Amino acid sequence: MKTISGGVCAPKGFLAGGIRCGIKPTSQKKDLALIYSRKVCSAAAVFTANKVKAASVRLSQENIADGRLRAVIANSGNANACTGDQGLEAAKRMACLAAEALSIDSSQVAVASTGVIGVQLPIEVIADNIGALKASLRDDEQGHADALEAIMTTDKRKKEIAVEIKIDGKTARIGAMTKGSGMIHPNMATMLAFITTDAAITSDALDFCLRRAVKRSFNRLTVDGDTSTNDMVIVMANGEAGNAVISKEQGVGSRDWGDLEIFSEALEFVCVELTKMMARDGEGATKLVTVNVMGACCEETAEALAKSVASSSLVKAACFGADANWGRVLCAMGYAGVDFSPEKVCVNFSSRAGEISVCRNGQTVQFSEEKAKIILSEEEIEINIALEDGVGAASAWGCDLTYDYVKINGDYRS
Amino acid sequence: MKTISGGVCAPKGFLAGGIRCGIKPTSQKKDLALIYSRKVCSAAAVFTANKVKAASVRLSQENIADGRLRAVIANSGNANACTGDQGLEAAKRMACLAAEALSIDSSQVAVASTGVIGVQLPIEVIADNIGALKASLRDDEQGHADALEAIMTTDKRKKEIAVEIKIDGKTARIGAMTKGSGMIHPNMATMLAFITTDAAITSDALDFCLRRAVKRSFNRLTVDGDTSTNDMVIVMANGEAGNAVISKEQGVGSRDWGDLEIFSEALEFVCVELTKMMARDGEGATKLVTVNVMGACCEETAEALAKSVASSSLVKAACFGADANWGRVLCAMGYAGVDFSPEKVCVNFSSRAGEISVCRNGQTVQFSEEKAKIILSEEEIEINIALEDGVGAASAWGCDLTYDYVKINGDYRS
Repeated sequence: MKTISGGVCAPKGFLAGGIRCGIKPTSQKKDLALIYSRKVCSAAAVFTANKVKAASVRLSQENIADGRLRAVIANSGNANACTGDQGLEAAKRMACLAAEALSIDSSQVAVASTGVIGVQLPIEVIADNIGALKASLRDDEQGHADALEAIMTTDKRKKEIAVEIKIDGKTARIGAMTKGSGMIHPNMATMLAFITTDAAITSDALDFCLRRAVKRSFNRLTVDGDTSTNDMVIVMANGEAGNAVISKEQGVGSRDWGDLEIFSEALEFVCVELTKMMARDGEGATKLVTVNVMGACCEETAEALAKSVASSSLVKAACFGADANWGRVLCAMGYAGVDFSPEKVCVNFSSRAGEISVCRNGQTVQFSEEKAKIILSEEEIEINIALEDGVGAASAWGCDLTYDYVKINGDYRS
Repeated sequence: MKTISGGVCAPKGFLAGGIRCGIKPTSQKKDLALIYSRKVCSAAAVFTANKVKAASVRLSQENIADGRLRAVIANSGNANACTGDQGLEAAKRMACLAAEALSIDSSQVAVASTGVIGVQLPIEVIADNIGALKASLRDDEQGHADALEAIMTTDKRKKEIAVEIKIDGKTARIGAMTKGSGMIHPNMATMLAFITTDAAITSDALDFCLRRAVKRSFNRLTVDGDTSTNDMVIVMANGEAGNAVISKEQGVGSRDWGDLEIFSEALEFVCVELTKMMARDGEGATKLVTVNVMGACCEETAEALAKSVASSSLVKAACFGADANWGRVLCAMGYAGVDFSPEKVCVNFSSRAGEISVCRNGQTVQFSEEKAKIILSEEEIEINIALEDGVGAASAWGCDLTYDYVKINGDYRS
């Protein structure tokens, strides 16, 4: 597997584009994106678990039910959430506009929105500009870049990746873009991720791989614990790589998953890298904080512990202050709601500046506060937790809690 | 029921005191407190659910198992948590020192600690000063005030209350003190509450009333979602009011609980008032935020929704910014993990400056941003949520998320 450029346009047969149509009236930034495959795709998606679902989520859930998609149209500047029947009509119209422009069926179009909640989507400005949106489609890196710009909101960094893998002797690619800073600004629709691949794979197998990858990546990202009305991860596979179609049957229950395993691991890699980029780009964040738990009784317990530590406001504030306050780590583990032996917990902090042990067997150890401060002052720090309860391991990703987080969220709408 | 002065010394037969013994070496504040009853008390307690429990919690759980207590000794400046066998020995020694000084059995003494995690308790300075601690005991308001000062850490306000009620024709009193700002600084041992009463009541009935009150007060308080290793609420009843002993049997299953109901409601009132004081005193807080949910299918659902809204970092940051961002309220309800009908949700914001409706039937309504800003700029604001799913109602209390929260917690230990 190697990393390549091109984002969602890296896989063969995909085009992307983005324009400014005026959904964000006071901004000169692009606000409308389109991703399109020359051929019908197998598709899979994971949507927000929030009870309050945006119109785009409800429509896209319906359109992807048959495991087929060919395009995604997405806007920023308006979440189209809490907008009632009128909002759902607007989402449908958005899918129809894209479908007509591309001469495809509207049930093959997924719709995504991100922005402020509770304001009706100005669908007419989208209608007025649908021709220009189609004209912006390109099959190169620029097409990807335009689409990515059009879905970004408070994002400060571009979050994109593409990889190349060998499947069945053929070269296949996976490309991806994401916006959002990880469950951190839900009324901006938090997190959208669009993933394309030219691998040939059934929609069942794609769904299996996506759920596995999301569980081990986006679902272990935490910035402030809030989850959005608009979250959506979509993957489309058009088969242009020409490999023998990967199916779920070939993998499940066999020791060697073969092509399914190769694809699944590549997709997981893509999702984990995007997750780290999102954590690093958390609102107001100055640091990427990775929490690694090993030696738990099972993966689920390790995950719960890692997420609880990464979510703790107190741990996050201590990371901001480069304060080796390991008591907060144990405390956050203690309210994770899972079983472990507190008296066997060992904790160390690490970064490229070094590593320091701060807690052994659940108790304090002597350590140099000065050295700890140097280690925790790096931009990427790791909190490593070792248990003796089994072989379960998991990582979770987050960021520090800073003055800027409060500033950004204290008056977001104005 | 009327509010009176005197705190934990308001009920007959209770004495309290506090001194500085040097557990906080760099501070001139008191750090060691004692509360004592002339007679053996019925007692009940609620302890932290955190898997990582301080030595004081483990010892006090044991000592209260028989429903009897006569004294509480408490220190600030050191949590005695994550301190292993040595820490447990120190907690036991602390109970013995108090018991010897008071000539009572050490199993009648509860121990509480609050402060930094992971540092051994300097038990010798407590031993050296136990005589002075006993000498500080008084049965008046000053005794209460000295004890309260000795358990405070980052608290900026004194949190205390006492009430008088009539039971069985007799006058009874309930007095209380608490420290902590509501699950907000767990390695400072967060929340301690000590409640005294001269009502005569069995320990079973006391336990019943305390659990009911805690569920509707402290457990609906949220500042940052963290829960501590040292949390402890203790109530002691010495019977000096001379009423016929209140038992659990007289109440359960009967429509009129009689004395049990009177006592239970008074205890709940005391706990709710302390809860509001803690929320108002949240680290860095500038506002008390009350979230009221009504019309839910049941009380448990109302509680889950109210707590989810009060806990949301985004809602809390919006309260700080006086931003009427009701989309965040709906979003936080949506991930509360309970069932409700989003399309029937109505939300309004209120304070002494007025009331404003911002969401009706899950959708936006036109409202004056200017008026909303005025309402949300008050020091006590309410978020009122109405559903149409039933008659379940609950309130939760929290505070805003501010720059100062980050500052206080970014480098707490130094």
